[in-house]
Amino acid sequence: MTRAESSEQSVDLEPQLGDPLRPVTIAAIAESAGVSVPTVSKVINGRSGVAAQTRARVEAAINQHGYRRSSPAARSNMMELVFDEIEDMWGVQIIRGVERVARQHGVGVILTEFGPQRSAIRYWIDDTLSRRPDCLVTVAQLDEEQRNQLRARGIPFVVFDPTVELPDDVPFVGATNWAGGRSAARHLIGLGHRRIAMIAAPEGILCCRARLDGYRAACDAAGLSGDLIVRAELSREGGETAALDLLNRPDRPTAIFAANDLQAFGVYQAARRLGMRIPIDLSVVGFDDLPLADLVDPPLTTIHQPLTEMAVTATELALALGRGERASQVGLELGTTLKVRRSTAPPGASG
Amino acid sequence: MTRAESSEQSVDLEPQLGDPLRPVTIAAIAESAGVSVPTVSKVINGRSGVAAQTRARVEAAINQHGYRRSSPAARSNMMELVFDEIEDMWGVQIIRGVERVARQHGVGVILTEFGPQRSAIRYWIDDTLSRRPDCLVTVAQLDEEQRNQLRARGIPFVVFDPTVELPDDVPFVGATNWAGGRSAARHLIGLGHRRIAMIAAPEGILCCRARLDGYRAACDAAGLSGDLIVRAELSREGGETAALDLLNRPDRPTAIFAANDLQAFGVYQAARRLGMRIPIDLSVVGFDDLPLADLVDPPLTTIHQPLTEMAVTATELALALGRGERASQVGLELGTTLKVRRSTAPPGASG
Repeated sequence: MTRAESSEQSVDLEPQLGDPLRPVTIAAIAESAGVSVPTVSKVINGRSGVAAQTRARVEAAINQHGYRRSSPAARSNMMELVFDEIEDMWGVQIIRGVERVARQHGVGVILTEFGPQRSAIRYWIDDTLSRRPDCLVTVAQLDEEQRNQLRARGIPFVVFDPTVELPDDVPFVGATNWAGGRSAARHLIGLGHRRIAMIAAPEGILCCRARLDGYRAACDAAGLSGDLIVRAELSREGGETAALDLLNRPDRPTAIFAANDLQAFGVYQAARRLGMRIPIDLSVVGFDDLPLADLVDPPLTTIHQPLTEMAVTATELALALGRGERASQVGLELGTTLKVRRSTAPPGASG
Repeated sequence: MTRAESSEQSVDLEPQLGDPLRPVTIAAIAESAGVSVPTVSKVINGRSGVAAQTRARVEAAINQHGYRRSSPAARSNMMELVFDEIEDMWGVQIIRGVERVARQHGVGVILTEFGPQRSAIRYWIDDTLSRRPDCLVTVAQLDEEQRNQLRARGIPFVVFDPTVELPDDVPFVGATNWAGGRSAARHLIGLGHRRIAMIAAPEGILCCRARLDGYRAACDAAGLSGDLIVRAELSREGGETAALDLLNRPDRPTAIFAANDLQAFGVYQAARRLGMRIPIDLSVVGFDDLPLADLVDPPLTTIHQPLTEMAVTATELALALGRGERASQVGLELGTTLKVRRSTAPPGASG
């Protein structure tokens, strides 16, 4: 089958590790998977009528050989942005970056939110992908099966701010979480703090593990123990509970670095409950730089995570992959920056 | 031309005020506009190759006769959500409501942001509408020409929270702004305040005018003058400047009702600068109930605007119109509710 026979089914298949001049045909995929050419075509085009087992076999064959659509005529000029749940505090910053780039390229953005319990994933995989977006930016952490289904349909994707370990060949855009954590702790050390606690995230969130390790690296370099750590949910409530725990100890810390801004707002509440003034009695550093970090009292010193720029970069990368370009770099982290506001000061500044 | 001849061009045209059993044909539209049938079809399908003047004439003829696509087969199972600029503080609440309903209906959501200076509007009208979404929810305030272009393509739309005057036949979903403004002022009056100021929005924002009128109605009913009003931008900076003006007067108010929460946060800043305590020295009420209204210190008493429910309702209405159903009600306002938190108290509560 050639492109001239059926433009809808036309894809150029390219060996991942073999000779780029010898494109893999749909026929070869069909033979390798032991199915008919129309069956492969159905899988690639996301149409129904293929048994789950057969589909999996075809997807495996396609993934093994690798391929990309390269015909510009086949492009839909649509891309997809995928969330598990869109978060109040930072969803807009991500969407704004994606929209900006899509607008420049005249590409429409399909926004998908899986919702509570990721209820829409099944629908998304089965139906939505038949729209054949040119590419995809995913804030949702897709599992390997879902990534394979995208690959089998020749839809390139970029993972936004990965929270779990990804294979090396999965394109992603994140932030320099380790450097950010280190920078937060160094700022507090530079102010003269010695008892610096960290409220860390629950186990298993990769970006937050990097923040914790950055904090530890800075403590190490300064000869501090770096073991004044309490784990808590990444919420205001989590931050408040953890801070109350830390501040009720006999050797209470003079500074707390929270794994995100929401936790830091919880630290504010804990300090208020204990009658402690920020930053006179306690310095606080957050991570994220949410729009409201500047609105709380006192304005929060925090690590700025460039969410909009990350979304811009992820979208540019995804669109380039969608055009069939090879990316010079499949994974990258954009630099975080320390925003010094009013929640940090030398220990006992006015006392 | 009948639907059997060309499914792509098939539309059922229906007189707006005439006999619903006698659908208007494309041929009738063509005759009325003095153009060929293919030209009408091009306009309806958003294709190029029609001079601007001709296009306008065809659109006028279609608008005059009215029509709706009623063939379910022609549906794209896509809808479009349109913003001028997506706002940090409430964009997600709107998107979440739209996504929830779209998910239930298995409909994909195309998200369009016109961006600064509405730069993408031209692109949107010319190109994006050729995607033929089944319907549209627009937070952007489209002008009459843009609404006519949508109508001419048979794409029903619902205006979200209109800020400008709309003709009676334009479907919209808003909030009970007048009742909300009245409720805010009544709450303060009930606490015993007599000098209640309002920070109003700049002229020309319809929803805010309704809030102001609600405030005045409550003041009237209580025998208060209701003329302690300063206009300001709907921003924190606007609120701060207006509050400093009000609070530096010899007869400073004991309570301020701000036209939105951002202004109210500005009032907090002004109070802080003047060493006034909220709510002991000053009561503050906002409007919107942004996610951070509960996070500031003290948590803000405000009028809850049910943005997510409004988006749900707008989307359900738009999808019903997209299915060719006649809406029993084309415009509606969802009820606001007073959220009493900690920023309001009787005047001089502890003094």
